[in-house]
Amino acid sequence: MEVGIGFLGFGNIGSGVFNIIKANGQEIEKREGLRLTVKRALVRDINKKRGVEVDPGLFTANPEDVLSDPGISIVAEFMGGAEPAREYILRALEKGKTVVTANKEVIAIHWPELQEAARKTGAGLYFEASVAGGVPIIKAMAESLNANRVLEIMGIINGTTNYILSRMSDEGRSFEEVLAEAKRLGYAEPDPTMDIEGCDTMYKLSILASMAFQTRVSVEGIYREGISSITVEDIEYGKELGLAMRLLAIAKKQDGCLEARVHPTFIPQSHPLAAVRDSYNAIFIKGDMVGNLMFYGRGAGSLPTGSAVVSDIIAACHNRGRHRGMFAGNSGVCREEAKINGNWETEFFLRLTVTDKPGVLAKIAGVFGKHQVSIASVIQKGHDRDTAPLIFVTHKAQELSMRRAVEDMRHIPEVARIENLIRVER
Amino acid sequence: MEVGIGFLGFGNIGSGVFNIIKANGQEIEKREGLRLTVKRALVRDINKKRGVEVDPGLFTANPEDVLSDPGISIVAEFMGGAEPAREYILRALEKGKTVVTANKEVIAIHWPELQEAARKTGAGLYFEASVAGGVPIIKAMAESLNANRVLEIMGIINGTTNYILSRMSDEGRSFEEVLAEAKRLGYAEPDPTMDIEGCDTMYKLSILASMAFQTRVSVEGIYREGISSITVEDIEYGKELGLAMRLLAIAKKQDGCLEARVHPTFIPQSHPLAAVRDSYNAIFIKGDMVGNLMFYGRGAGSLPTGSAVVSDIIAACHNRGRHRGMFAGNSGVCREEAKINGNWETEFFLRLTVTDKPGVLAKIAGVFGKHQVSIASVIQKGHDRDTAPLIFVTHKAQELSMRRAVEDMRHIPEVARIENLIRVER
Repeated sequence: MEVGIGFLGFGNIGSGVFNIIKANGQEIEKREGLRLTVKRALVRDINKKRGVEVDPGLFTANPEDVLSDPGISIVAEFMGGAEPAREYILRALEKGKTVVTANKEVIAIHWPELQEAARKTGAGLYFEASVAGGVPIIKAMAESLNANRVLEIMGIINGTTNYILSRMSDEGRSFEEVLAEAKRLGYAEPDPTMDIEGCDTMYKLSILASMAFQTRVSVEGIYREGISSITVEDIEYGKELGLAMRLLAIAKKQDGCLEARVHPTFIPQSHPLAAVRDSYNAIFIKGDMVGNLMFYGRGAGSLPTGSAVVSDIIAACHNRGRHRGMFAGNSGVCREEAKINGNWETEFFLRLTVTDKPGVLAKIAGVFGKHQVSIASVIQKGHDRDTAPLIFVTHKAQELSMRRAVEDMRHIPEVARIENLIRVER
Repeated sequence: MEVGIGFLGFGNIGSGVFNIIKANGQEIEKREGLRLTVKRALVRDINKKRGVEVDPGLFTANPEDVLSDPGISIVAEFMGGAEPAREYILRALEKGKTVVTANKEVIAIHWPELQEAARKTGAGLYFEASVAGGVPIIKAMAESLNANRVLEIMGIINGTTNYILSRMSDEGRSFEEVLAEAKRLGYAEPDPTMDIEGCDTMYKLSILASMAFQTRVSVEGIYREGISSITVEDIEYGKELGLAMRLLAIAKKQDGCLEARVHPTFIPQSHPLAAVRDSYNAIFIKGDMVGNLMFYGRGAGSLPTGSAVVSDIIAACHNRGRHRGMFAGNSGVCREEAKINGNWETEFFLRLTVTDKPGVLAKIAGVFGKHQVSIASVIQKGHDRDTAPLIFVTHKAQELSMRRAVEDMRHIPEVARIENLIRVER
């Protein structure tokens, strides 16, 4: 069967998909009985040189050439951003064309509207490539975990920040230095804010958590903290405590409420996520039946992400006539917002700089006690100045109690600086 | 839709599947629109106490009650072993019933016959649970890697041996001691030969490699070596060299030939597989487009394996009327045997005990040279007896050359013992 595909965008991912079809199209035809044919590609500048051997007649600047071509049954979107991606995807779905997208932002923000449009015409909406690139986590969530209630997910789903944190950790270099290197190597964008501040991770967590917990987890419900305040000192003290630093996307269900948060996190060095280095991604999932699972691989890049797009295209072809919503409920669109709990329980790593006077430890311990936060371990190091580092790891405590304790500590004269507060997950 | 399920067997996995349907059946009905109902279960002794709350009328000792009940559309097989599982599966498929099995042995040995029977009646044959328990590796291979040519797979797919090796490594205890503990804890069978000697791993590799390389990889083509000869000394010297010891199932394609082997293997401590501890399983895959992927989770156990069985049952329901062979080609049965290369290239760790006389190193190095094996590193340790340990790690060399070099070393008078020869993969 020949399958006509239209591209919206032809950048990094689009050219990856194109190259995969070129290199492995015959093999795919042999195995799957599908001849994938890219018919048109919407681009801004049809004359731009693209470093891919391609018939220039493929390119068009007119979206109608993709959205209205009856020979195109699958529209693959790689434009990124919410608009005009949302508009084009809606129009494709309204015409009954199945959409395969790598766009986390448009799915995270607009999925109920898009899913509803797909349902109306019976078209499919696929987005494996939108989270963790080549790692087939969306299909696993939708089709392999369906005998389970998911209890918890913890993911490293941004390659840039994982590259920076794992290099800082392995090589003892500063955030600024490694970020500059990451930019040079193309692992970080010229403006890396979206990655560094956890926005990219937040969009992906919205998608993952919505699927895992079968309810809508909007980005507005996700607590977010980036990695720019993480120092080599934090990482080194963590190591002494057997902890490794990662930017995690976390979602857990407890007593009918969800917690959803993106922040720098210490995990035990023996945790499988601690072995995830450089720009790799991994998602750790706990199901009530299957126990712990982890999926690991390339979270970005032209060919890994392209691999996920092509597998979605193949799935869409085999599912034609009976696409199922991969999202939330499978039986239709789930608009119901999750009940979010902003006062989760976790352990904390707190690094202070204190004036080295008798009684300071007692005062700080008093504040912890007042807020029902119990201390698991303390590091107090020798030093040669007036101030000294003081590091605490707590037992599990409520987020808001801990924040209040830290607020109170600002009023202790011997506390020179609150250096960092980092959550610890095990 | 109500789905009538018949069990063949009701042991560890069967009771897990039963308990999952009981606990999460309503949730599955809500999400998937399927009411899973276990109608009958074939057991040897219908009066046996089973520790599961179940209507005794469920049990039967007559296979016909499962295989010929028109109310049963899916037969789930958990008997293990090649016979009579093969016979019952064939009969179910011939009657058009879809079969879901957790039985690696029957699939590894008889899959062409079983797949052909399924094809004839249009029934489905599903076996996610046969490899790596709860880890959804079969579906990933069949449906998420289909834009790729797989280049290589390396798997930890036997929990017993991984428990033993990771405990020996983390705690410095002997093989015998940890094996005894594993038996006590139920991680090893009373007769652990199938696990320890790599047979279990071999069956699973046959299935994985056949799917990965879209050709039949019979167990006869798989080189197999168990872990009973591994000592704490090997593991400790490996650590000094930055290496971790695992029993790996390995399959690679090169120049149109496959290598397929199961043996104790040293991998770098930074390799994601080195973080796989205790009875966990993981499969590491390299695809030409997606790059490196790893899937990690519980490789055994009632509920994790049951989770995979139930996800297969759900998939079978959604695919009814158009089941696809999950094996080799997807377009039908693949009977073509892979061309096997028994002379693969790898690095080697060789541990000798030598008489401490001048010139011994030169003699051994001469033997390496004669067989075109080049040395990457040597450890020679201080000692207080007449003999001394001598450890080599080679660069990549051919398996057969290395074996011939080791044979020659037996004739060097100063070589007191060839302690161990272990392959190294990176």
